[in-house]
This record gives sequence, structure tokens and C-alpha cells, in this order.
Amino acid sequence: MFLETIKTDGIAHLSYIFGSQGEACVIDPQLDTDHYIAIANANNCKITTIIETHRNEDFISGALALSNKTSANIFHGPNADAAIAYAQELGDGSKLMVGKLQIEALHTPGHTKDSICLALTDTATTDGAIGVFTGDTLFVNDVGRADFYPDEKETMAGKLYDSLQRLLQLGDEVIVYPAHGAGSVCGGGMAEREFTTIGVERKNNPVLKIGDKDSFICTKVAEKHYIAPYFEQMEEANSKGVDTPLPPSVCMPLTNKQKQAWLTPNDRPGYLLDIRPVAAFQQHHVPGSLNFPGALLSAYAGWLLEYDQPIALVCTGPEQAFEGAQQLWRMGYQNIAGYLTDIPFPVTQTDKASSHLPTVTADTVKERLDNAPGEWVLLDVRKNTEVETMPFAGGTHMYLGHLKQHAADFNKNIHYTCMCGSGMRATVAASYLRYLGIDNVDIFDGSMQAWQQYQS
Amino acid sequence: MFLETIKTDGIAHLSYIFGSQGEACVIDPQLDTDHYIAIANANNCKITTIIETHRNEDFISGALALSNKTSANIFHGPNADAAIAYAQELGDGSKLMVGKLQIEALHTPGHTKDSICLALTDTATTDGAIGVFTGDTLFVNDVGRADFYPDEKETMAGKLYDSLQRLLQLGDEVIVYPAHGAGSVCGGGMAEREFTTIGVERKNNPVLKIGDKDSFICTKVAEKHYIAPYFEQMEEANSKGVDTPLPPSVCMPLTNKQKQAWLTPNDRPGYLLDIRPVAAFQQHHVPGSLNFPGALLSAYAGWLLEYDQPIALVCTGPEQAFEGAQQLWRMGYQNIAGYLTDIPFPVTQTDKASSHLPTVTADTVKERLDNAPGEWVLLDVRKNTEVETMPFAGGTHMYLGHLKQHAADFNKNIHYTCMCGSGMRATVAASYLRYLGIDNVDIFDGSMQAWQQYQS
Amino acid sequence: MFLETIKTDGIAHLSYIFGSQGEACVIDPQLDTDHYIAIANANNCKITTIIETHRNEDFISGALALSNKTSANIFHGPNADAAIAYAQELGDGSKLMVGKLQIEALHTPGHTKDSICLALTDTATTDGAIGVFTGDTLFVNDVGRADFYPDEKETMAGKLYDSLQRLLQLGDEVIVYPAHGAGSVCGGGMAEREFTTIGVERKNNPVLKIGDKDSFICTKVAEKHYIAPYFEQMEEANSKGVDTPLPPSVCMPLTNKQKQAWLTPNDRPGYLLDIRPVAAFQQHHVPGSLNFPGALLSAYAGWLLEYDQPIALVCTGPEQAFEGAQQLWRMGYQNIAGYLTDIPFPVTQTDKASSHLPTVTADTVKERLDNAPGEWVLLDVRKNTEVETMPFAGGTHMYLGHLKQHAADFNKNIHYTCMCGSGMRATVAASYLRYLGIDNVDIFDGSMQAWQQYQS
Amino acid sequence: MFLETIKTDGIAHLSYIFGSQGEACVIDPQLDTDHYIAIANANNCKITTIIETHRNEDFISGALALSNKTSANIFHGPNADAAIAYAQELGDGSKLMVGKLQIEALHTPGHTKDSICLALTDTATTDGAIGVFTGDTLFVNDVGRADFYPDEKETMAGKLYDSLQRLLQLGDEVIVYPAHGAGSVCGGGMAEREFTTIGVERKNNPVLKIGDKDSFICTKVAEKHYIAPYFEQMEEANSKGVDTPLPPSVCMPLTNKQKQAWLTPNDRPGYLLDIRPVAAFQQHHVPGSLNFPGALLSAYAGWLLEYDQPIALVCTGPEQAFEGAQQLWRMGYQNIAGYLTDIPFPVTQTDKASSHLPTVTADTVKERLDNAPGEWVLLDVRKNTEVETMPFAGGTHMYLGHLKQHAADFNKNIHYTCMCGSGMRATVAASYLRYLGIDNVDIFDGSMQAWQQYQS
Repeated sequence: MFLETIKTDGIAHLSYIFGSQGEACVIDPQLDTDHYIAIANANNCKITTIIETHRNEDFISGALALSNKTSANIFHGPNADAAIAYAQELGDGSKLMVGKLQIEALHTPGHTKDSICLALTDTATTDGAIGVFTGDTLFVNDVGRADFYPDEKETMAGKLYDSLQRLLQLGDEVIVYPAHGAGSVCGGGMAEREFTTIGVERKNNPVLKIGDKDSFICTKVAEKHYIAPYFEQMEEANSKGVDTPLPPSVCMPLTNKQKQAWLTPNDRPGYLLDIRPVAAFQQHHVPGSLNFPGALLSAYAGWLLEYDQPIALVCTGPEQAFEGAQQLWRMGYQNIAGYLTDIPFPVTQTDKASSHLPTVTADTVKERLDNAPGEWVLLDVRKNTEVETMPFAGGTHMYLGHLKQHAADFNKNIHYTCMCGSGMRATVAASYLRYLGIDNVDIFDGSMQAWQQYQS
Repeated sequence: MFLETIKTDGIAHLSYIFGSQGEACVIDPQLDTDHYIAIANANNCKITTIIETHRNEDFISGALALSNKTSANIFHGPNADAAIAYAQELGDGSKLMVGKLQIEALHTPGHTKDSICLALTDTATTDGAIGVFTGDTLFVNDVGRADFYPDEKETMAGKLYDSLQRLLQLGDEVIVYPAHGAGSVCGGGMAEREFTTIGVERKNNPVLKIGDKDSFICTKVAEKHYIAPYFEQMEEANSKGVDTPLPPSVCMPLTNKQKQAWLTPNDRPGYLLDIRPVAAFQQHHVPGSLNFPGALLSAYAGWLLEYDQPIALVCTGPEQAFEGAQQLWRMGYQNIAGYLTDIPFPVTQTDKASSHLPTVTADTVKERLDNAPGEWVLLDVRKNTEVETMPFAGGTHMYLGHLKQHAADFNKNIHYTCMCGSGMRATVAASYLRYLGIDNVDIFDGSMQAWQQYQS
Repeated sequence: MFLETIKTDGIAHLSYIFGSQGEACVIDPQLDTDHYIAIANANNCKITTIIETHRNEDFISGALALSNKTSANIFHGPNADAAIAYAQELGDGSKLMVGKLQIEALHTPGHTKDSICLALTDTATTDGAIGVFTGDTLFVNDVGRADFYPDEKETMAGKLYDSLQRLLQLGDEVIVYPAHGAGSVCGGGMAEREFTTIGVERKNNPVLKIGDKDSFICTKVAEKHYIAPYFEQMEEANSKGVDTPLPPSVCMPLTNKQKQAWLTPNDRPGYLLDIRPVAAFQQHHVPGSLNFPGALLSAYAGWLLEYDQPIALVCTGPEQAFEGAQQLWRMGYQNIAGYLTDIPFPVTQTDKASSHLPTVTADTVKERLDNAPGEWVLLDVRKNTEVETMPFAGGTHMYLGHLKQHAADFNKNIHYTCMCGSGMRATVAASYLRYLGIDNVDIFDGSMQAWQQYQS
Repeated sequence: MFLETIKTDGIAHLSYIFGSQGEACVIDPQLDTDHYIAIANANNCKITTIIETHRNEDFISGALALSNKTSANIFHGPNADAAIAYAQELGDGSKLMVGKLQIEALHTPGHTKDSICLALTDTATTDGAIGVFTGDTLFVNDVGRADFYPDEKETMAGKLYDSLQRLLQLGDEVIVYPAHGAGSVCGGGMAEREFTTIGVERKNNPVLKIGDKDSFICTKVAEKHYIAPYFEQMEEANSKGVDTPLPPSVCMPLTNKQKQAWLTPNDRPGYLLDIRPVAAFQQHHVPGSLNFPGALLSAYAGWLLEYDQPIALVCTGPEQAFEGAQQLWRMGYQNIAGYLTDIPFPVTQTDKASSHLPTVTADTVKERLDNAPGEWVLLDVRKNTEVETMPFAGGTHMYLGHLKQHAADFNKNIHYTCMCGSGMRATVAASYLRYLGIDNVDIFDGSMQAWQQYQS
């Protein structure tokens, strides 16, 4: 008997594999299907069952690809609106056996209509559940969003309340295995910790502790989450099912000829994404390239990039290129032309201006705020929740994810200083403004963190 | 924040590493110290704290080696009898912080006098414990042995009862992290499953469910566990502390000259251990070599081998050699001369007889039992508990671990057929009898498993 | 600038990758295309060119699969008989540049009509070639076979002679990069050493030293090589091109239900190949399974197995299963159902007889030879060249690769003792005889090696 | 039989391992001893022999550490001046066997007095040598330095000439295995290519082609190589022998408390080395830290750092930290306190000035050169040979390796612009000037490469 958690960084996703007596089951698989098979093999098991807790909207599901390789059956919750072509329905109360482990489905609508939770019992030694896979219904210290059906927000919040009550009834001793950890777009208040139980949540989870159903609904309806444009793309893909396992070496260096084209702004065949750290990008980058360092690629590519254009990466080497390509594939961007690692030197001050993003310090920002220059905007690209919790007087708020839909509103005659929590998202924003043709852009280095240090 | 389980096969040992905000803590480390450091590094943490739940008796502790590399502090429970030279005492109720995680020591004597359990609280999000490291006090579906102090068995069993009551009071919702899983010499009834909570154990653990203290003491005192001779060796090593990290390439092929000596029974400088699978060993081995396939090396080397002799391995290649060497190092056997992978062919029937171990089938055993030949012994080397649960009429019982202390009792004129549960331990036993100079030895292939199939 | 050799064990094949200034070239790629891409990436190069020294007959080429991933151009030698659909022709004297490295094609017919050698010049620093990729034309200490066109043996041998003279004219200082090392079916006298130069071969290669063309032709025509039935299969595949890269986890454990069928001789859906070492197989195997330990799978599967049946493996674990699957894929066997690692115990003497292959020692063989029993055959399955070099009086010779085509000639009333050089191929042969329904089979353990030891 | 090249980047060092029939030999081992053992194991060989072609001066030899693990014998050339305590002398003409491979020592003084070359013969198949390990005597396209004995430069150059003649006599067909490739401090004109033969060198190597001994001596004496101060340190270490294998996880994150000290310039316990890429360092670094990106750590740490101070690293993560630590260990710097990955944000313009290194473009440099400001120096830190080949009018030349010994000559009132070939070494130089307390420093971005582009 074994149970392992597979964490996918960037989207803070948690999938699970467990097995007993030669059989294994995977919950909410990612596209990296070989990894699940290797774990099953190492435990001398064969993957016979794949279950998805709901039709995922924030990544391409690996269920079909994994099933094609293993012949495992795929199960989904009841889905009246949109049947999942490649899956069998697992209705409330349905039970499956994986060796001596029993899985019982609980239909728990709220996050989505088809959400299920899966109670796990070890029939060899226990009466009653010892664990529950809670999908996007219950997280560590938070609960799932219930805002995906704009016209039914109150109804769905109410259903979520009822679903959570059912989970509480499983008993304090039941271990909780959620589908996301801290950093996901699927909930805002998750704890950093990734292990918990029903009892720990009952006592500590601030949303779960709202005892009254009406208050719960009020709280949930009042939440302001972002709905990324790529969610729709993912939902569609996950409805029909896609078999696009991550190839182990998808990303190759551009040839000299390709490089030529990608380095020339007018000939550039698509998006040039620079996935190096922000400091390196600020100092020196290919004019017109967009900076998506680390996990920000997963978090914001889907907001700022169209799906129909090729992508090339600027990075430090093949490992980083492959990591970037993986993040993009998981979001459904698979048209990756290759990568390059060397950038031409700026030779004149003009070259330099277009390949460098200046940063400003807290005292400079203070000075500008005090002098209030007319043609200057301090663009705060943080999330609603951050702005509410820690407002910054003088900033103009526009969420980073919304820049593309407001692209037409930016003005070439204005001087923009981008800010966020630490300066990372501000750099993404600044690179996007430059991409739009705005020249006069700089970055508040350290942003809120620097500001607090400056004030103290 | 992260928490990872590191499993050491063979001894079914579980150690843990967790961390928060740049600091990490290791519970009951093994000698493979680099592995802990790599996990800490990957989580951007530094190991600052090492805690041992008790002075371990079944493996060489890696605490000192890990501390020497990381400068982490080592903590032990209260130990009146034998102070641990390299550790600080962590008394009942003492608290330590690891980033935002709080560890509180519970002095829980019973398994040993110095046993502690460690309650884990996430001060960022929870009131009260979310997990508890239970060492050898509480396992999944079983509790620790309480038979290490021969004159105080009842007292220790009573203390264990009280200690378990304290654990129950932590609350149903608390996750249990024990020091052993199924297959350990530290408990017999553990479940295969490696995850549980206080509540799941309260409801299902058969020993914990014995509500009455007197009955509990009776049950524990009646248990018959084996006390391996190497426990003493380990205890002494772990009292003073040893810094012998596993070198990554300790095991090298024997030179041609060394090979010569190891292949000649009279010149052999020490034990020749054949760690290949039993079928390969039965078919053809170096005369006088001992078979310890897979995890049986961890389980029985400490019973059958002296510590003062060199060891060479017969195996399929360098990977298997290294795995064997690791198992031996963990038990304190570090004088490993090297390995060899090729064995001379038998050329005459006499060569063959000494390099081959015959197997017999169930119907042959049946026939022998029926005819009851005078000079024949069916040697059953299973554990007490197995023999009690599933007796085999006609077998003479002697636990595999006890063969060495009864070496003088074996008789060259007797024909021995070795048996166990599946034939694996029977092969170890048969190789040991041959090592003692008994020629007329064979193996009941499949043993109890074959017998059941034969009967059905 | 880099040049790496990639060795494929089993078929003793050598492929090469080299690169300069961002471009790389692969010579004679195997199916493991990701490996070439990883090496190119690590050297900051892109694979732009793939060259095959001839249409290979002993493995499935990876050229098309690699080209599909990298968009590299594929080149082949002039092929009047059968154009290679997916390749461009590289005629005698054609030159290609890979960064600063120049490749010049030399049309060197002999082994095949389309064979080319590729002279490598570093245009940055050298006049004239520094290396030459010799395909199956020139090996270390041997030259290629010239017997693939039964009606043109003398003509082809003559062409080979002329081609070798051209290679000699490149100069003593030129490094030789052949397509095979010792152990290949493509030549018998190769040295174990894998590095040489034109000068070293000119002075030492026994075939190359035959100065006179007529003598050379005589020697080559007199050679007796085996032509495996799978060569035709490979040639056809390599003519049209196949894109079947090795999946990283093709091999999975059989489900319990599948296991049932594969273990039952009458229900068995295909070939059950046991790839464990011979000693383990001899001792205990699934009745009717065939033993192909280690590299013997590559060497003899193509002789003894049909292409249209599924295959399941018996092995020690997933790593060994994957290695076995890789060997099979390279030969074009891709219908692999999975693997199993546990074998039922024999319960009766009859079970045992069918799951065990007895071995006999040299003195027993001597005795049988002396007594010359009528219904006994000592079946010597070595190669022609071995039998000629080291004859064994009393043996009946039939090459292991020929057993299938003579299957009808074996007689159930005869007692066969199989022998070879060391006993390994004898075990393959014995398992095949048992597969054919011959019961009375045993193995001369150690065979020639044991015999020599016995005689001394 | 096998032969593998092990390349150590940074110092462009090549070591070799080869073996036959269970025995292996290592030529010029590095400290990563486990790697050699793993290769030997994989080839079923035991390392019995270690040979050093001379007492190395540019890295810590791994010979003693490898011998301590394997019991292999260590051999050195004749060394009248300084006997190597741990090695046996291998005089001219001495022969050793490694399986069927024969090694013959040729005493080839010139680079050092104790230099030997090692001719390799495969006694199974060849008369005469097939390869030669040439140490620092002969490289691809260059020959060794002969300037290590300041008073005997002519004598040593003459000896080198004679030694090279001996190598030529081995025959054109002999493969050359040198101890360094392009990028080493041990020779300037090496080709990028790492494979060659005596014949290819005879025809193409520009130094070897100088036929006349007197002209050869003139040429060699006129060469201007740098003698790094750490050479002496290495020579001393390698004379007595050191056993300091690279630990697999030597480098750990600094604790929060350590971090505090290292980030405070006045409390800093030693050197803070920032091994991130130059662009990241230029943009933002810890004030007072030194930049040594990539292989520049191996190349220049030994010039600019004392041996008696602790070192901490600034890097992107544990892998990069470990690579940096490895480079330092190979040079004998083993006092590594740990690493950090996060750097405080600059909050004021003053903070920013001290944590940022400005870059200037070619047109700015042109402007400054034209205006010739009095208090401005364009500091060209390239090597002699680069400055001679491609002079830059207006630059003041001082080799990067010499900055430390001229530290007192720098003037705080002067504005320095650092330049080199591409801007990388200029950044190292600029960080060192800042470390010396010079504030007014900037970097000519792209340096010569940018200049050429600007001119075109």
C-alpha cells in the first residue's frame, strides 16, 4: 500500500497516486504521465483507475493521455451540462476498489456542478474513511471558489456550504488531500502547509468556521476572484480530452536562421518570452520580449498571450527552456519554436534604452508622489485582495492579468512606473507595456517590500 | 513549509524532515545524511535541529554525522540511565521552533525509558497540534514493544499504556508519523498503510482499543518478541555517537588476486555473502557462501554474522553491491572488502553438490512426513507468531535468528529440509547449515505457500 | 566543437554525434532520439543533419523519428535498387558543413551497394581529414561482411577491396569511427577495443593486410556469416522509414487478470520471455517460457520469434523490464503486453520437472560420451566460426539461430544436452526445445569453459 | 576494454580512465573520485593504477584521494627536485600492464622536469602504440608552456623540442590524449576540437611545424604566459598529496543569523562571491560582493582571493551553489560557509548606487575617448595575447589576474570604465574595483564585441 503526492509548481497543483495489491489509482493527473507510471511500477502496481474531482479549468488534464498508455478507466462526477466524452460517471455513493483500498464518491457541488470528493477507506484495517480527496472543494485553511457560474453565485455558494457539511461529517480523524496548495488561482487564503485533517480544518479554517449558511453565502458571494481568459480554453480541452503528453525534449535551440528572425522585431514570428530572473531581464533583454520569470509564466501567460501564435524562449540553458516549455504545455500552449540563450549587446544609447528597463527606488517614488507630475502614472498591478489589505496611496490599480484587455487605454505620452508586491510582477507589466509600444516605463524596485523598509 | 517522509527499506524505518522559513528539522535520521541535506536545500532551508525519539536499537543513527555536516543541534529525551554524549535533553513539555512550526516534546516512556513523542503545531494557522511524531510508541494498527527491560516488563507496559493515553488526548484530528512501517522488528501487527491519525487509531488499532490498563499490561507482557544480538551493538554505538556517513561508492569489485582468496574456502578472509535472489543461489553458488537476498540482509545479518570479520559480496553488479553495502553499513558492518559477480562453473558432480542447494516440492515433503524417516528433520525457521498462527505439523521449530546460538546442536548425520513462509528464509537457513558443515540439506520450495496450494 | 560516441549494447552498435557553432550532426541514429537531442542541447547545438552510412539491416533506424523532432535533413548513400523515401542522396564527393566541420562522402560499396564513409575535416585548424565514419565498411581489426547479395558475392568483395583502398589513402593519421564494436552480427573478428586509426588498421588489421585483391576476394567469399531472418524485416522498415521512438515507460506490470492468462500455457496470448539470468531460469521458471538473458535478447530474439505475436516479460523489476523492451523495440518487436516478476511455486514433482532445467557437469558429459547412449544428442549451438576454431568431438552442431527453421526435426524420444561456449546460449536453446514440447532436455553447465577446466 | 575521457569545465582539464580484463587505470584524476569509481564499476573493472603526467599546478590532484579509496598504486615521472611522497617513480621506458593494455612511460621534460607521456598499446591486437597520453606536453594545435623555471627558460624549451620529436617518432597513426582542451591556462592556441593524432598534429600544429630547434626555442621563450599565484599553492599541495574528495553536498544555505553577518559589509566574515550571470550582478548585487560568473570562478578566483578567508556564495539555488563550491574546492578553497539566494532591495538612490554597476555602450565610450576627460581611465583587463592580436587604442592595459597585486595603485578620484572581450571579465574587474573602495566604476557592455559591431 502506498500513497504519494505529486506537486506541480507554478499552478500549485496537487495530484495523488495510491495503490494496493498490484492496482493503483491516480487522482487529477497532470500531463507528465510517465511520472505516475514510474511510481506505480516502483510499487509493483498497474494504474487501473483515474479519477478527476471535477473538470479542471486551470490546466490541461493528463487523464486521457495516461489512460491511453495504461488502459485505465477514467471517472468523473455527475455532469449534466457537459458530459466528458472520455470518462464514466461516478455518481454520489458509488464505490470503487483499488486492491484493498475503497474509494467512495461524494457528489459535492459548489466549486463546479460536477465536483466530487473521494473518501478513502483501508478495508484491511479500518472502519470508515481515513482520508478524503477534496479537489477544489476544501483546501488547507480555505475553501473553493464558487463564482464560476455568474448567474448562480448564491445557489452555488449554498451548495458548497452543504457539501462542506458533508465533508465535516466524515469525522475529525480523516486526512484531507486537496487539489491545490498555497499560490493557486483557485483560492486565496490557503495555508503554506500541505497536510491537514477534517478536525484541524473544522477548528481552524476561517471560512469553514462560519457556522451560519447565510453568512457563508454572503462571504463567498462577496469574494472577488479573477476569471482568467484561458479557463475557457482549458474547460473546452478538458471536456473533449486531449492526449498531449509532455515530450521529454520538446524544446530545442533555435537554428542560426531562426534566431535571425526572432531577434528582428519586424520579422518576429510570435511571442518572445524571456524566462530569466527579473534582474537579468531589467538589465538587458531583446527589445520587445516579454519577461515571465519562474512561476509567473504559469500564472500570467494565459492572461497576456493569444493561443494562435508561436512562442520562442530566452533563457539560461536547456534545463530552464524545458521547464518553461512544460509550464506552457500545461496551459495548452504547444507551439514552441525553440529557445535562445545569447542576446546581442546594445551598441548605442538607443539600443540600450530599448533593451533595458530602468528601476527606481522608494525615495525616488516618494519624491515623484510628492511632486505629482502630470504625465506620470504609478501603475499598481497587484490583485484586488492585496490592494484591499495593503493599499498604496497614489497608485493607479490595474490587475496584471487585465493589462491585455485594457491595452488600448495606455498612452504613449505618459510615463508609467510599475509596482506590485516585490517588483516581479511589475517587471512583467513593464515588459508588456514596452511590448505595446510605450517607451517611458520604469519599475519600482522592491515595490511594497521596499516601501515598507523605506518607511521604517 | 514542507514535510517529507524518508523510508528506509529493509528495516521499514521512517524518518521525517520538515521545515519553514529557512529552517528545517530532521526526526530520527539514517546514515544517508546527504539525502536530508538535498531535501532541505531544495526547500531553501538549512537543517538546524535534529531530534531522536529514543536511542535506537535497530540501526546506526545518522544524527551525529548529520550534525557534523550542518552544525544542527541534536535533541534526545530524558535518559537517566545512559546520557547521550552528543545530544541535549528535551524534557517533557519543552518546545522548539522551526520557522513557524512548533515542536513540543511529550515524554512517553514505555518502549524505552527515554522515548519521546513530538507534537507539531503550525503557529501560523492552527491552535493545537496537527501532527505527532510517535517514534516507536504508536504505529499504524499497533503499538511499540515494551520488553527491552527484562526485569521491568510490567512496569514498562504500564508506562506505555499511560503514554498512549496522553497521545489520545492530543485529539482525533492529529496526524500520526510513526518511526516504523510494516516489516519492522519493532512491532508485529503494523498495517501496510503508512498514514493515519489519532482518531483512526483510536477507532481501529486493536491494541490501543484495549481500554483497561491491566488487560493492556497482560497483553503486552505476553507478547514474544525477539531481541537480536546486534541491538546491543547498535545501542552502544548510538550512545556514544558515530560519524560514518555512507560513502557513495564504498563497494568496489575485488581484484583478481583478492577474488582468488575469497573463492578458496580455506583462504577465505571472512564472510562471503551472496545477495542474489534465492533461485539463482539455489542453482549455483560459491561453496560456503551465505545467501541474504534483498531485505533479508537487513533482517538477519545481525543475527548470524560476527562484527569482527571482513565481508565480500556476490551479486549481479555494482548497483546491487552498493545496496547490499548500504544495508550492512546501517547495521554497523563496515568492513566490506568488495564484491564479485562471476562464479566458477562446477565441473564435477562433487563441485556441483557443494555449489547447489536442492529444493523439494510439497508432495515430496508429504511423502517424507508420511514415511517419517529417522534421520530427517524438517526445520521450520519462521517466527513464533507465524508458527502459532499457522502451525505446521511435523516441523521442528527454530527461529532463523537463533541458528547461530544453536550451531553446536546441528548434526552432520542428519538430513535437514528447511522451510519458512515462502522458501526465502529457508534458503538463508540452508546456506547457513552448509556453512556450518552440514552437507545433507535441502529446501522446501515455496514452504507454507506451496503447502497451502498443495492442500487445496 | 564536440564529438560523442553513443554505444548500444546488445547489438554492439556505435552511433556518433558531433557539432560546431550551434549545429550538430548524427551518424546512424538509434531509436532513443531524446538522448541525441539532450547531448546536442548540452553543447548548445541544434541537430541539423542526420546521415546513415547505409540502409541498416540489424536494427530499426531512428533517423526518421529524430528528423521529425528536429527537422534535420536525412542523407543516404546512392541507392539504385531501393530509394530511401525519407532521405536525400549524398553522392560520392558531396560535402556538407556542420559549423566549421566538413563532412565529405566517399561512396564505398561492398558491405551494401549504398554504403558510404564520411571523412571529417576541421576547417578551422586542419588540412585534410582527421576522422572518418566507416559504417560497416571498416571495423577495428576486421572489415565488413560482403555476403548480402548471394549472386554477387565476388563482385561485392571486390568492391569492398577497392573501397578499403580508398580509405587507406586518407592517411595513417585519420581516426576511424566504425558503426560496430566487438559482439556485432556484422563481423566476426572485431577487437574489443573501440578506438583506432587508419594507420593502426593498416599495420594490424588481419583482413586489411591481405594485399592482393584476389586473395582478399577469396577470403571474403569463403567467410560463413549468418543471415538472420529479421534482417529482411529491418531492411523493409528502414527503406520506408518508421517513427517509433522508444517511449520512456512502455513496459508496465501485467494486471492480475492478464497474469492469469499468461501463466496458463493453453491461454497464453503470445511469447513469454524470461530475461532473468540463466541460473535463476534454470532453477525455476514458468513452464513454456523462453530464456533470453541480457544481450542474448538482441542477439537471438529475431531468430526465434515471429513478429505477429504479443510478448510478455518475466524479469526482476521495472528497470529490467524496460531494458528488455528497449532491446525488443530496436528489433521491431513493439507488441509488448507487460511484465511479471513473480512465478508460482512448483508444488509437485511434475510441476517442478516442467519449471526446472537440469544442468550436468563436465564429468557427466564425459561419462555419457564414453558410454554413447543411443537416444542421446549433445547439441552444440555455437557459431560456425567457434566450432571450427575449437571443435568438440561428440557434439552435433546446430547454430542457435537455426533451431526454429529445424523445429520439425527434433524428436520427443531423444534426450538432448545443450552446450555452447559458457552455458548461456545452451540455456536459450534448452528453453526453446522445451517450448517445442521436448521434455528430456538438460544443459551442459559451463560448456566449453567447464570442459577446458575439467581437462586441465 | 574501454577508454573514457572525463572533462572538467572551467579549467578545461581532460583526465582519462581505461581498462581491460577487470583492471583499470586513471590518468591525472580530479577530486571527483566517485565518478572514476562508478565508470570502472560499470565496466566491471577495479582501479589498480593511477598515473599523473606531471605534478599539476592548476588544480588539486585527486590521486591520493582515489588511491585511498581503491588501494591503487600512484605513479609519477622522475622528479629530482621534489619527490612526490605518495607516488612511485615511473622512469623512462618503464612499462605497466592494465589487463591486456600496456602503458610505456616516455620521460618528456619541457613543460616540467618530471613530465612523462604514456604510450598505450593493445597487446591483444596491435604492434606498437595506438594512443599516447601527452599531459601538458602536446595539445591539439599547440604545445605545452615551458616557462615555469624562470632561470632555465631556454634549456626547458630545448628539452620540450626534443620531447616532441620523441612523440612524433611514435608514428602518425597514434591517437593523442592531452591533459587540456581549449580554454586552459596551460596553453593559448589550443583548438576547440579535442581529438587528434600524431599525424594530424605533425601536419597542422603551428608550433610543432617549426622544424628548427633554435627557432622553436626562440618562439617558446618569447611567449608571455601568466603565472598565477595559486600555482605555488597547488604545487605544494600536490607534492605532499591531499585527500579531500568533493563532498556531494558541501554547500548549504546560510542560516538567518549567518546571513545577517554576510550582508553587513562591516561584519562580513570573508569573501562574498556572486556567481550569477553578469547581467543579474550588474543590475543588483550585495554591496562589496565580487562577481565570478560561470567558469570565471575557476579562472580568476586563484588570482584575486587569499586562501585564508571564508567564502560565501550568492547564487540562484543549490545546484549553482554546488557547482561553484566544486570549482573552488578544485583550486584548494575549502572554507565555504554556505550560500544565499535573496538580496535586499535597494531603497534609496544611495543603496542603489552601491548595489548596481552601470554599463556604457560603444557610442558613449567613443564619445569619452574623443573628449579625453582627464580623470577617466578605460581599463582593459584582457590577456597580453588578446591585446597584441586586437589592440584597442585609448585603453590602459592591466590583466585581470594582476589587479590584486596592483590594488594600491587605483585611485578613488578616477572614473574607471572596465573592458575586456565581451564584458564578462570587465564585470569581474569592476566588482573588484568596487571591493577596493573605488566608487566611480562602470563597464563597457560587450566591450570588443560591441566595438566591432559599432564600427561596422
